[in-house]
Amino acid sequence: MAQFMDVHEGFVGVTTEQLSEAHDADLAIEAAEGVHFAHAWIDSASGKVWCLSTGPSKEAVMRVHERAGHPTAEVYEITGEV
Amino acid sequence: MAQFMDVHEGFVGVTTEQLSEAHDADLAIEAAEGVHFAHAWIDSASGKVWCLSTGPSKEAVMRVHERAGHPTAEVYEITGEV
Repeated sequence: MAQFMDVHEGFVGVTTEQLSEAHDADLAIEAAEGVHFAHAWIDSASGKVWCLSTGPSKEAVMRVHERAGHPTAEVYEITGEV
Repeated sequence: MAQFMDVHEGFVGVTTEQLSEAHDADLAIEAAEGVHFAHAWIDSASGKVWCLSTGPSKEAVMRVHERAGHPTAEVYEITGEV
């Protein structure tokens, strides 16, 4: 099981409640891909969102986000953390 | 006290031990700016690093990173998290 950081753009003005709804949409379907979205952070001024997840592959992470309605191609595999 | 996500580029091939040393360099001087670097993640293939911190301003976060030897201009204020 690997860990991933993915990045979304375009979430300008999105509230924490809306972020939570988007996150819940991931959680509702992630199990089919063996993915778990653990955490998400938003900067609603720039519209950037970062999601930290675990899963079998970048592609699995991308499929969950796409099916949940917020696709991104920018997914990075974490090789270390402190 | 606000929360920030900052992004570094160019850390290709950097090990977790080296990331930990860089993080320790931040921790050693962060108090002077009222900043705390809580967590960092690296993708050593793309060379990207994400740091999550708390502090009084983006500029304070930037000053700590610059003095520790790894400046970045890409610092975002977190407006929400789940």
